[in-house]
Amino acid sequence: MAKHNAFYAQSGGVTAVINASACGVIEACRRHSDRIGHLYAGHNGIIGALLEDLIDTNQESEEAIAALRHTPGGAFGSCRYKLKSIETHRAEYERLIEVFKAHDIRYFFYNGGGDSADTCLKVSQLSETMGYPLTAIHVPKTVDNDLPITDNSPGFGSVAKYVATSTREAALDIESMCSTSTKVFILEVMGRHAGWIAAAGALSGESPEEAPHLIIFPEIAFDRAKVMARIDEAVKHHGFCVLVVSEGAQYADGTFLTDSGSTDAFGHKQLGGVAPTLASMVKEDLGHKYHWAVADYLQRAARHIASKTDVNQAYAVGEAAVELALAGQNSMMPAIKRVSDAPYEWKVEPASLSEIANHEKFMPRDYISEDGFYISEAGRRYLAPLILGEDFPPFENGLPKVAKLKKAKVDRKLARFEL
Amino acid sequence: MAKHNAFYAQSGGVTAVINASACGVIEACRRHSDRIGHLYAGHNGIIGALLEDLIDTNQESEEAIAALRHTPGGAFGSCRYKLKSIETHRAEYERLIEVFKAHDIRYFFYNGGGDSADTCLKVSQLSETMGYPLTAIHVPKTVDNDLPITDNSPGFGSVAKYVATSTREAALDIESMCSTSTKVFILEVMGRHAGWIAAAGALSGESPEEAPHLIIFPEIAFDRAKVMARIDEAVKHHGFCVLVVSEGAQYADGTFLTDSGSTDAFGHKQLGGVAPTLASMVKEDLGHKYHWAVADYLQRAARHIASKTDVNQAYAVGEAAVELALAGQNSMMPAIKRVSDAPYEWKVEPASLSEIANHEKFMPRDYISEDGFYISEAGRRYLAPLILGEDFPPFENGLPKVAKLKKAKVDRKLARFEL
Repeated sequence: MAKHNAFYAQSGGVTAVINASACGVIEACRRHSDRIGHLYAGHNGIIGALLEDLIDTNQESEEAIAALRHTPGGAFGSCRYKLKSIETHRAEYERLIEVFKAHDIRYFFYNGGGDSADTCLKVSQLSETMGYPLTAIHVPKTVDNDLPITDNSPGFGSVAKYVATSTREAALDIESMCSTSTKVFILEVMGRHAGWIAAAGALSGESPEEAPHLIIFPEIAFDRAKVMARIDEAVKHHGFCVLVVSEGAQYADGTFLTDSGSTDAFGHKQLGGVAPTLASMVKEDLGHKYHWAVADYLQRAARHIASKTDVNQAYAVGEAAVELALAGQNSMMPAIKRVSDAPYEWKVEPASLSEIANHEKFMPRDYISEDGFYISEAGRRYLAPLILGEDFPPFENGLPKVAKLKKAKVDRKLARFEL
Repeated sequence: MAKHNAFYAQSGGVTAVINASACGVIEACRRHSDRIGHLYAGHNGIIGALLEDLIDTNQESEEAIAALRHTPGGAFGSCRYKLKSIETHRAEYERLIEVFKAHDIRYFFYNGGGDSADTCLKVSQLSETMGYPLTAIHVPKTVDNDLPITDNSPGFGSVAKYVATSTREAALDIESMCSTSTKVFILEVMGRHAGWIAAAGALSGESPEEAPHLIIFPEIAFDRAKVMARIDEAVKHHGFCVLVVSEGAQYADGTFLTDSGSTDAFGHKQLGGVAPTLASMVKEDLGHKYHWAVADYLQRAARHIASKTDVNQAYAVGEAAVELALAGQNSMMPAIKRVSDAPYEWKVEPASLSEIANHEKFMPRDYISEDGFYISEAGRRYLAPLILGEDFPPFENGLPKVAKLKKAKVDRKLARFEL
């Protein structure tokens, strides 16, 4: 069989396990060294391909590549950059082909979420639209869990585990102090459009009798009076109330809570943070002592508390992508298919990229309890297996060890290109 | 030897390892069942003693007590309640003696920080001032690390490990995205009066060449222009800047950054959060894209990433407290004494409570770098060993298991008492 090179890039917001997918891709490529010569990683995602800014992963030691499996962030750099349509931006596509030709790249692996799937789809059409023989495979990744077809998106299970664990731990803290101190604790988590991550907070307990007592989903219109009544009820009943709130919490008219018009002394809009916004409502309406936390990047970077299920799936889709490519399955994505809930069983199955790109998977209404403040049993059945298993990284001097890569750059063969 | 009962209570803000101290106290008492009959825990700290609200720890299984070692929060409830002076509040002290007499309590273990040490000191004087034979021992605990004499305070090492780990993980996330996304990341940590916790963030890297690039201490007067210049420099040099900022960050005149006079649209003071305050300065002065996180209770409850050194020390001071009490050493506190930095060696030594109560230990200026934005080598030598070792809790269904206690209440023998 002819031997050609491959390209891999990370795209969009990174996760605790995107490098586990990179590890899967790289190790699979190495096992197929008879057919794949060099695997080049794009420095900062697709931008690396456009700028001919390539890292030769063949220069990395086996140990360094293995360490990617337990290293958060995007080891080769990621980007937020969406290819425009080929009709209006033909030059970008021509440049990609020029770079691929110059480096004999015939396999393209793109590791990202919904927007990236669209980019990958466009690249996968290059063979047809521009006559360049390329096999493009999308490797799924997103903490938002909004990719369709696949049971879940690698990256989500680990955020879910972080949020559920943090909620359980913080709830014990608040419970022990509530007789004379904080009565309401608000944890803000990611999820601008869908409440998947907030929903995972519910795994901390068995029912709203245990913390968290309340979840604020972006899918359920925020009703201040109702929410405050529920908080007050929990404080009266349990002595304290723990809430998990999605950053995307919004009113019925679609206004985000964080865009509620508050301004600071200089007349500037108050900076993000639905947690402090909600806290101020608690103070005004109920007068309870509160505390709030905003997990932000900590949640999607928390590799130290990653879900083993998630790490395994992230690796598996990376590995499967290479097999698909070598089988000539252009324009596909390895998806996770759930075989059973309990015990949780799953396998990887190919899905057509055209069914993935530009489709968002929202949380089904029936995963949320009828009153809109908690998850349903169906929601729990879906979520519970995704946080199963621990996969602690090795530690050194008390801290998680991370991969140290050489990131040897590939010599440029082409003229510069302006983005 | 005569056999009497003992009392144990948790006081002030709880930590990830205060229950490990409880475990040490309880297991040591059980080993001395010839001299200590029942160990009663105060429900909600000293309030439990005043209200005769006692939990009989003898009713708990060995397994449940062992599980305290890996359970965050305060298992018996804690409180913020400081005994006033005996001169003005004699009735409270008389009540304590009444409760102790009614339940034959002759040993008093109080697990807390600086304010609690003062309460314990007052209780330890009861034998002298009011003729009741009681041996009172303070068990040190505080994430603030501000107790004197002891090398460090149990609870601090685990927060330090959480902050250093989270900083390292988040920094990898930001680094991978900085070419097209967030350039400045701000992590707010606890420490109203001292920068110990913020300082621990520096353990994430080896020097300010690695993240975090900047630490904002409460001990160093905040100078907006200087800080912004440093942030901009880091962004230019590294492509991104990670800051760890203490919630106690303040201007030269002692005004907290969080009290900077910002108000929302309703004219209310903007709610806490030095991180969003600093973020708004970054936006105004530099225009860089930013993100911020506020760890709040997550940091002091994060038992899943506790320092093994900290867990061992927390247990050891609990155990030592019982030995001191049985040796008749009234008004003492088992303190941690550092024997060597590297390899880190430590032992427990008794310290007199009068030297502990009402003395605060601040961060020595020479633990901070000369420019005020980082730790010094001396600071690193002090901090580094405290985060050593991991002590992961057992997990079940993907989540940390926590102790389930019966908390059997002791029958009341006295009339009610009003606080």
